[in-house]
Amino acid sequence: MGMALSLGRRGLGRVWPNPNVGCVVVRDGRVLGRGWTADGGRPHAETQALDGIDAKGATVYVTLEPCAHHGKTPPCAEALIAAKVARVVIATGDPDARVAGKGIAMLRGAGIAVNTGVREAGARADLAGFLLRVEQNRPFVTLKLASSFDGRIATATGESKWITGPDARRMVHAMRAQHDAVLVGAGTVRADDPSLTVRDLGYTRQPVRVVASGRLEIEARQLFATIPDAPLWLCHGPNVDAQKWADFGAQTFECAVQGRQIDPVDMMQKLAAQGLTRVFCEGGGSLAASLLGAGLVDEIVGFTAGTMLGAEGTPSIGAMGLDRLVDAPRFELAQIQRVGADLMHRWVRT
Amino acid sequence: MGMALSLGRRGLGRVWPNPNVGCVVVRDGRVLGRGWTADGGRPHAETQALDGIDAKGATVYVTLEPCAHHGKTPPCAEALIAAKVARVVIATGDPDARVAGKGIAMLRGAGIAVNTGVREAGARADLAGFLLRVEQNRPFVTLKLASSFDGRIATATGESKWITGPDARRMVHAMRAQHDAVLVGAGTVRADDPSLTVRDLGYTRQPVRVVASGRLEIEARQLFATIPDAPLWLCHGPNVDAQKWADFGAQTFECAVQGRQIDPVDMMQKLAAQGLTRVFCEGGGSLAASLLGAGLVDEIVGFTAGTMLGAEGTPSIGAMGLDRLVDAPRFELAQIQRVGADLMHRWVRT
Repeated sequence: MGMALSLGRRGLGRVWPNPNVGCVVVRDGRVLGRGWTADGGRPHAETQALDGIDAKGATVYVTLEPCAHHGKTPPCAEALIAAKVARVVIATGDPDARVAGKGIAMLRGAGIAVNTGVREAGARADLAGFLLRVEQNRPFVTLKLASSFDGRIATATGESKWITGPDARRMVHAMRAQHDAVLVGAGTVRADDPSLTVRDLGYTRQPVRVVASGRLEIEARQLFATIPDAPLWLCHGPNVDAQKWADFGAQTFECAVQGRQIDPVDMMQKLAAQGLTRVFCEGGGSLAASLLGAGLVDEIVGFTAGTMLGAEGTPSIGAMGLDRLVDAPRFELAQIQRVGADLMHRWVRT
Repeated sequence: MGMALSLGRRGLGRVWPNPNVGCVVVRDGRVLGRGWTADGGRPHAETQALDGIDAKGATVYVTLEPCAHHGKTPPCAEALIAAKVARVVIATGDPDARVAGKGIAMLRGAGIAVNTGVREAGARADLAGFLLRVEQNRPFVTLKLASSFDGRIATATGESKWITGPDARRMVHAMRAQHDAVLVGAGTVRADDPSLTVRDLGYTRQPVRVVASGRLEIEARQLFATIPDAPLWLCHGPNVDAQKWADFGAQTFECAVQGRQIDPVDMMQKLAAQGLTRVFCEGGGSLAASLLGAGLVDEIVGFTAGTMLGAEGTPSIGAMGLDRLVDAPRFELAQIQRVGADLMHRWVRT
């Protein structure tokens, strides 16, 4: 199952709206086949693992319950039955209403031994994006903040290039590649004119770029210039001339607003409805505060540089309206690592 | 020499105004004696290492050039000559004008072989407090900042207990114990009423507590209540009724001011003149910014908690008047470590 989980993680950021499943076929202590969800979500991991092998009597390790329904592919449970495997070991069940135990029932009905719950916590962590989309109607959200030692993302005059170093920026590109979409607020677009693509990693599949902007008062030269490379989605408030942006090739989504800000819950529901399972938010401070305040952040990645910009600098997280410490969100330290001259620290929801 | 350096570090925070020297006496591959500067700075490491042994013909490893002058103790160079040692290996020279090569000359004059510069960089790092006091007329300064993920040390309403956890606070006490003095600004005294003593470590030698306060508008109940345990020094500006505080048992030092703030360079010179070699500054934000701006910070220790307080919170570092990134101070990452639920990161001057 460890190998299956590892294979499944290869699909992170590449298989939405489908889950990033891994699958290993074993008989007599030998690995006969391995598979993971292919780019774009199809073929499924089981199909890939069974491809070209005789799996009769084999044990199949799969990180998510095999699907039971005819979608754009035939059900994997049927494929396993047809392959005459002896046993299927499943890490966690699929909450999708079209599966939800039916895959397991089909296998058992065909006389195949089924074990479930093997390394379930690990599988649920790896599949968190898909599970959240199905179970909570929102994607998994990673918030990345690259700041000075004192939590500033720009000087008082707006200078921000570069606080962290090239190694940290390279790691950010690798992280973008493991997410379905990169999300920023309008302020960041105005300040940095970013392209938000994955670069210099020999990587061609690009995440969707999403901008949250209540009034769409953005210029976004780089984002528009790179639409041929990667989709651009704009989440905006009501009473905005969205057609203008659609004409440029962006997809537009009208979201509810809270004051001048996009309602983060509504935005995430809209993104989940489009199939996104993993969103990588790169700020700025207002959007970060809004997502944290709504409890929508699952993981926080900090890149901290050994420099200090002082209190006039732009804060990494905007106003949160918190008075009491007990009300502040709390995350658990999951990873610390030196990255070039900077410090990377990853925290997960407790 | 590695052992001598390690022994020398035992004196950190305990031997001011003297250097924290380590010494090992070896003959025929056997360690005959070990010593380090005793609490309060005397006896010196060499005296301790030679005590009770016959060191004739031995090699002596010592982290700092043996002293050559009659101070409160007779010169260590004489003691080594009297012990008839064959060779002395020295990590780094003593810049004190009363020594400055004279110790080495005395040894060589007595026919003792002398090697110098062995693990010099390590010794200079360990002895940095003493070397800075002698060479630059200021102590080594460690700046400690315990903050939320977004660099805040209190909520908008001033709540700060506790952002970081008990393990981090315990480590802070251990760090205090390795410094000659603990320094805070008046704002921190007003906000937290701290005692700044070393507690719960079975440790009796207390660092000096220093408060920087231009106008001495502080209450400092805990600081005054604990004067029987640890000295309290007040660095203040002109035209302040310092006698009142002296009557309570504090020592007072009038320093130059810049606007409403104590001139940090003058303050550090005054502290060095008192013999302090290692100062542990625990904030607040204004004092931290002032020390950083004056280039007086040698090491920064961050404790980062997995919580976010938002932009209304109190910043860990105050206004620095920086516009350009290139003007910001830069530190090099020296250590990262998980401490309880928090992250500890240590950065050193580049």
